[in-house]
Amino acid sequence: MSEKLLQHINFPKDVRSLNPEQLPKLAQELRRFIIDVVATKEGHLGASLGVVELTIALHYVFNTPEDLLVWDVGHQAYGHKILTGRKDVFHTNRQLNGISGFPKRSESEYDTFGVGHSSTSISAALGMAIASQIKREDKQHIAVIGDASIASGMAFEALNHAGVTNANLLVILNDNAIGIDPSVGALKEYLTRMKSKRSDIEQHNIIEALNFDYSGPIDGHNLEELISELNRLKEIAGPKFLHVTTTKGKGLKQAEENQVKYHAPGKFDKVSGDLLPKPSITQPPKYQDVFGKTIVELAQQNERIVGITPAMLTGSSLKFMLDKFPERTFDVGIAEQHAVTLAAGMATEGIIPFCNIYSTFLQRAYDQIIHDVATQNLPVIYCLDRAGLVGQDGATHHGVFDLAYLRCIPNMIIFAPRNEVELRNIMYTAQLGLDHPIAIRYPRGRGITVDWQEPFEAIEIGKGVSIKEGTDIAVLSIGTIAKNVSEAIDLATDKAKVAHYDLRFVKPLDENLLHSVFQNFDKILTIEDGTVNGGFGSAILEFAATHKYNNSITVLGIPDTFVNHGTIDELQQLCKIDSVSISNQINDLIK
Amino acid sequence: MSEKLLQHINFPKDVRSLNPEQLPKLAQELRRFIIDVVATKEGHLGASLGVVELTIALHYVFNTPEDLLVWDVGHQAYGHKILTGRKDVFHTNRQLNGISGFPKRSESEYDTFGVGHSSTSISAALGMAIASQIKREDKQHIAVIGDASIASGMAFEALNHAGVTNANLLVILNDNAIGIDPSVGALKEYLTRMKSKRSDIEQHNIIEALNFDYSGPIDGHNLEELISELNRLKEIAGPKFLHVTTTKGKGLKQAEENQVKYHAPGKFDKVSGDLLPKPSITQPPKYQDVFGKTIVELAQQNERIVGITPAMLTGSSLKFMLDKFPERTFDVGIAEQHAVTLAAGMATEGIIPFCNIYSTFLQRAYDQIIHDVATQNLPVIYCLDRAGLVGQDGATHHGVFDLAYLRCIPNMIIFAPRNEVELRNIMYTAQLGLDHPIAIRYPRGRGITVDWQEPFEAIEIGKGVSIKEGTDIAVLSIGTIAKNVSEAIDLATDKAKVAHYDLRFVKPLDENLLHSVFQNFDKILTIEDGTVNGGFGSAILEFAATHKYNNSITVLGIPDTFVNHGTIDELQQLCKIDSVSISNQINDLIK
Repeated sequence: MSEKLLQHINFPKDVRSLNPEQLPKLAQELRRFIIDVVATKEGHLGASLGVVELTIALHYVFNTPEDLLVWDVGHQAYGHKILTGRKDVFHTNRQLNGISGFPKRSESEYDTFGVGHSSTSISAALGMAIASQIKREDKQHIAVIGDASIASGMAFEALNHAGVTNANLLVILNDNAIGIDPSVGALKEYLTRMKSKRSDIEQHNIIEALNFDYSGPIDGHNLEELISELNRLKEIAGPKFLHVTTTKGKGLKQAEENQVKYHAPGKFDKVSGDLLPKPSITQPPKYQDVFGKTIVELAQQNERIVGITPAMLTGSSLKFMLDKFPERTFDVGIAEQHAVTLAAGMATEGIIPFCNIYSTFLQRAYDQIIHDVATQNLPVIYCLDRAGLVGQDGATHHGVFDLAYLRCIPNMIIFAPRNEVELRNIMYTAQLGLDHPIAIRYPRGRGITVDWQEPFEAIEIGKGVSIKEGTDIAVLSIGTIAKNVSEAIDLATDKAKVAHYDLRFVKPLDENLLHSVFQNFDKILTIEDGTVNGGFGSAILEFAATHKYNNSITVLGIPDTFVNHGTIDELQQLCKIDSVSISNQINDLIK
Repeated sequence: MSEKLLQHINFPKDVRSLNPEQLPKLAQELRRFIIDVVATKEGHLGASLGVVELTIALHYVFNTPEDLLVWDVGHQAYGHKILTGRKDVFHTNRQLNGISGFPKRSESEYDTFGVGHSSTSISAALGMAIASQIKREDKQHIAVIGDASIASGMAFEALNHAGVTNANLLVILNDNAIGIDPSVGALKEYLTRMKSKRSDIEQHNIIEALNFDYSGPIDGHNLEELISELNRLKEIAGPKFLHVTTTKGKGLKQAEENQVKYHAPGKFDKVSGDLLPKPSITQPPKYQDVFGKTIVELAQQNERIVGITPAMLTGSSLKFMLDKFPERTFDVGIAEQHAVTLAAGMATEGIIPFCNIYSTFLQRAYDQIIHDVATQNLPVIYCLDRAGLVGQDGATHHGVFDLAYLRCIPNMIIFAPRNEVELRNIMYTAQLGLDHPIAIRYPRGRGITVDWQEPFEAIEIGKGVSIKEGTDIAVLSIGTIAKNVSEAIDLATDKAKVAHYDLRFVKPLDENLLHSVFQNFDKILTIEDGTVNGGFGSAILEFAATHKYNNSITVLGIPDTFVNHGTIDELQQLCKIDSVSISNQINDLIK
């Protein structure tokens, strides 16, 4: 098939100049374009394939960017990006200085609202719709949200508010019965019942109960039906809700059949869809798998252990536990707030909850950490996955605020493992029974230790370790950034002068170790992959002030700016926490 | 009426020893007891009066504390406290070293879960119910939640999860159609329709759609009906939902008729219910009223201004704006997450949202601040009411974490007014148009300036001010704690030696001013009513480290522990940020 339609399409106005009969061909071409690029450049595949027709229909019916279109999460917005001026740069997707994998306001006027985390679209679009009312502007406002995202509390809050306004808001439910993992929860079951009874829809459904004008479910791959229904809804006043059913991965057989794997499949053959084989050399494990396999080991020995995830079964590797202990494994959906307080409730009754949440998503449960767990000093075990810089997902996903936002909370223990063995051992230690909640933060991706499954050893709470002796400068690091420090010391001009300590605990600090360091080294360098404002380095500054030390302290970490996307190596260089930058800093201090 | 029943009741077992016919009399006595104590000791009145019968019925039917009862928010738990071993200390309610105004685990085994913020009860009780399943224990688990609280996203997340479990959970909706202000939202309207059609309840309602066994609505003041229905539900497996209608303030005429005022009425006549007159001397205004009156003034001049509150219309004084500009005032219900992202959506379209949220409740919207506002650098104006120590509401309500958790977020401006005029002027400045989001934090209660309504003056962003000159020590303060500093300097042995600066902005810091301070004073003292971990003092330490100053810096603020309830003066003394403690600290430094 020649790509003659898409060739001439750069903006939605070009789409709108086509005849309706041409649109299915455009859909075919757009789908092919996405597959071809993602096959080699990687990225999120399934979600965008599922909404190709919906994307075309929306830009065909609505007058974007005057009409305001908000995509929830944004995994599904590749087609939107390609049709809104970014076809020629789409191959730079998720690369340093390339386009973002998510809608982003600074990138295009068609990206009305930056997204990345789920369930924000209805609130944002309602805000825009109310703004139009106040400004007396006649615009359309559309939020497109998936069935996993709409089950999150924030989306419910927005529906609950929208239903008592007369705002011109259209909420489109893109119902494919899956988020990254299959959707869960009572609402999902209800939606499934609605779909199965299509010819006999309940007279007063849950959406109508919230005062929305409900229509659907309609086939989200039928362009004619989509366009007709969107045109009809455009003329209806007040909050409206269109239920669209789609197939994630639509148009690539393997992506349709294996929706979890093809959410973000890595490189694959663009014709067959086969995933490209990964090199078979022995590599260190992913921290995720260390978590997943270790919790299974521990749960075998300790029947009070449970695992909780808010919709990240696969990403967190808690799926290993689900396979072995389904009755002690809880995927609660995109519900971080509930996940944390559920864990708190369990902990009151002597259950030992490992609550695995990505660092960036734990921001959603901040009040629950303080109010439901820490105030009551309940021994909930948070495993903060994807802490630090996460790479290609960019500004919305870096887990760089956690040390600062957790450190101010009384009763918290905060630990960052330097390697796989430390992660294993702190998990072992935590389930032995602590008197406090503990947050264990570790990064995305592979560690450094191939043979990591050593016998468990308990870790003394609040105890740091010496990694290397030295005479002049003490480097204090926390977590896996220790690897960069070791490399930096090897690169330094006079490595004998540099000592290296891994504090391991951001809270409580190892005060004995610190007193020794402050008494023996004039110059101290702290390094973390978290914000310099309020993070680990600040904890060291506070220690020094409290004890009236006036050593010179240099703090390295994530600067006070949002870091965009790129590889982790590239971003560490930008933040000057890569080996070479640290080495340069050490050399400067030695001088 | 002699109080002979209540006299002999100290624990639920005593209630359970009564005949059902005696319970209405107990209800009468319990209600009277609450009124008598709250009339003189102050506290939350209306909510507890509304659930007197429900409280008795619950402890009568269920085997507390073996069966686990979780109260949402906890304003309504006075009756529960009186019947569970705390009758004789109830007069110490909310006082320093007295009992807490909320359920608290450390206070009683009958307080299964500490509360204060809303909408946590279903998650917590579900956690307990699942724990019982895992431990194979046969217990009952009950969450009592109000209609305002159940409309919050977190409660929806918990219902959505509970509906796909077979946990033995009973959710009781205490539907009185009011939170602190009247409830809002589409769900509230739906519940109202359900109640009005009592004899003709919809066959498949929104609760049943989430897989709960629904019953009700029943009259929450009819003990016989309550007990009969609770006994029936006790025998039903899986998640159950009982809809109970009550009247807030029940039994005190004025409290029933003026439910907002009698939520927490202050002192009143225990017989007539009349509020006791407050002294008529001219007092400085409450910061809340400064906010409320100022936003009205500004909104009159600037038609792009809107006001948003999550269910705190009266408490925040945004009600003044609602009276004048109802179409630009939004009470979104207990929905902090939605409130912040709604504001973000409005800001994208050039509307100027003042989003007023209590500091402690902004914790609920932390991810939205980062992900939806700051990442996009949208000029949302947060007014953080009740920042710092709040007094009698205690550990769950102090707004002491905000400086630490906001300071690590790029793009944020953080300002704390020293007095009423500064609050007015920063609000004026913010609506002129900033390039960043701004958080304006101010305390609960009265300020210091009777004549505060001066003409507006713009404040230069990032500019601190000198309050008092001095020679040896520089005190740096932020916000209204400046008053304590001024008093402390007056008390100090050698006040000429002490300079005082109000930084005003925690971010961006006034670096020019700080360079001058660090170059002119050896000793620096920082003071804030926020956590010493990561707060304003840490910002000063970071500044010093960055610029290689080694002045002696002493940081005063809220220590790393949860602060309980008491008067603000008492709590400031405990935290050593009262005038005398600061003065002692200054004297020590002068030596």
